[in-house]
Amino acid sequence: MDKEFTVSRRVQFCETDLAGVLHFSNYYRLMEEAECAFWRAQGLSVIGSDGEKAISWPRVSSNCEYYAPARFEDELEIALTVVEVSTRSVTYQAEFRCRGRRIAAGRVTGVCCVTVGNSFEPVAIPARLREKLEAIRNS
Amino acid sequence: MDKEFTVSRRVQFCETDLAGVLHFSNYYRLMEEAECAFWRAQGLSVIGSDGEKAISWPRVSSNCEYYAPARFEDELEIALTVVEVSTRSVTYQAEFRCRGRRIAAGRVTGVCCVTVGNSFEPVAIPARLREKLEAIRNS
Amino acid sequence: MDKEFTVSRRVQFCETDLAGVLHFSNYYRLMEEAECAFWRAQGLSVIGSDGEKAISWPRVSSNCEYYAPARFEDELEIALTVVEVSTRSVTYQAEFRCRGRRIAAGRVTGVCCVTVGNSFEPVAIPARLREKLEAIRNS
Amino acid sequence: MDKEFTVSRRVQFCETDLAGVLHFSNYYRLMEEAECAFWRAQGLSVIGSDGEKAISWPRVSSNCEYYAPARFEDELEIALTVVEVSTRSVTYQAEFRCRGRRIAAGRVTGVCCVTVGNSFEPVAIPARLREKLEAIRNS
Repeated sequence: MDKEFTVSRRVQFCETDLAGVLHFSNYYRLMEEAECAFWRAQGLSVIGSDGEKAISWPRVSSNCEYYAPARFEDELEIALTVVEVSTRSVTYQAEFRCRGRRIAAGRVTGVCCVTVGNSFEPVAIPARLREKLEAIRNS
Repeated sequence: MDKEFTVSRRVQFCETDLAGVLHFSNYYRLMEEAECAFWRAQGLSVIGSDGEKAISWPRVSSNCEYYAPARFEDELEIALTVVEVSTRSVTYQAEFRCRGRRIAAGRVTGVCCVTVGNSFEPVAIPARLREKLEAIRNS
Repeated sequence: MDKEFTVSRRVQFCETDLAGVLHFSNYYRLMEEAECAFWRAQGLSVIGSDGEKAISWPRVSSNCEYYAPARFEDELEIALTVVEVSTRSVTYQAEFRCRGRRIAAGRVTGVCCVTVGNSFEPVAIPARLREKLEAIRNS
Repeated sequence: MDKEFTVSRRVQFCETDLAGVLHFSNYYRLMEEAECAFWRAQGLSVIGSDGEKAISWPRVSSNCEYYAPARFEDELEIALTVVEVSTRSVTYQAEFRCRGRRIAAGRVTGVCCVTVGNSFEPVAIPARLREKLEAIRNS
């Protein structure tokens, strides 16, 4: 697999605001869409399992820089890269392109957690997943 | 309590679309906000319990008629009425007003369910809840 | 073109709610996504022009019946049909299928409008668009 | 006016995801809700005017750190502070509190723009607005 994982995604009508552009909060939703597609491309799901318990990745930080607006029906290319893998967390970078031009770039960090009752408990990323993430980061 | 339960809610920037108006799908979100506020006003939650199991209200139908657009920063009044209570379901009507004028009206029907594993199982509305709903419908 | 226009669309993480299913308001967003894709398939845009003025389709009514829940990563098929074309409005029906099973069905009616200053003014559907819609409805 | 501007906002059902918590993208929507309420509290609107042209504030960057999850029906306090005012841009900080505990904090920077045709053109913040922002930042 290539280091950069890309998905193509058209801007929908309801994702624009009265200023006529993709609302700035929606870039975070698109980052997550790319992240989920990335896991599916590995034959896995962002909502996984360590064999016994359900695993999810609550976010501890996210950020985005916006260079140019995206508009209704624009076909965006979202290029995802795994930029950091630690014992318990992973950081993705997403670059948004439109007609070949970079229009935004951001990062999101999620922490590997199992759900205990009603709360999230951080755990070490299961070896099988971590190896995948490491291999992709270094590809 | 009055038959009509009203909440006030301002149209937010991200709820508008490029046509400059509240997106038609968001009226359904607002209906649900009013429904949840209605339950809280009874000292209850839309996500309740029959004493043992968690209760939720998956929707079986919804509809809305739109008479005039709502715009950013408009202060909407949402008037909720319980229009039908059956053994297992409840139907709410919501009327949307803006500056005293009716701009939209819709209905949503939810079915009382307990969660069994990963799926919803319809159950009779617990007596305590049903009495509340009946009393309000007939008030 | 076939009478039924279909798009495939995966349920995204942020479209689910705490009950673990696609939120009922999001079916309306998906209907609109299918409608916009339908216009693009005709080489047009839902945000069009009558040659001089911008045309949009504010909604006057929408409804949906829900038969079974959709969950994260489900691949939905949305089948759009043009069911009614009048002088000024068009009604679409959308059927939602998941793994070959019908899980929801709804309708949305939009009115052809030009924007005059800050408000929508209904107009007759431009002949060119109406012919397309009629042809598709009768196919 | 106090340096810190606070709004109270309940987490809505449709803002949660299948993990049962407020989706991370929605914190950005809430930051903007607080920002718009802040402008209204000044007797102004985030969608303003320089006397002739419409002014809006397209975002150039945003970020958020998440310390603890927020859940359905949690009553959040969002405390907004003006942390930087330059010739053309303003940066807000938002702190999210739930039951007295800080659960998230983020920043968003918007650039003062007039709309020229279909695009945004950065302009100096009108003196009247800048004075307000400066006064609040230094209060």
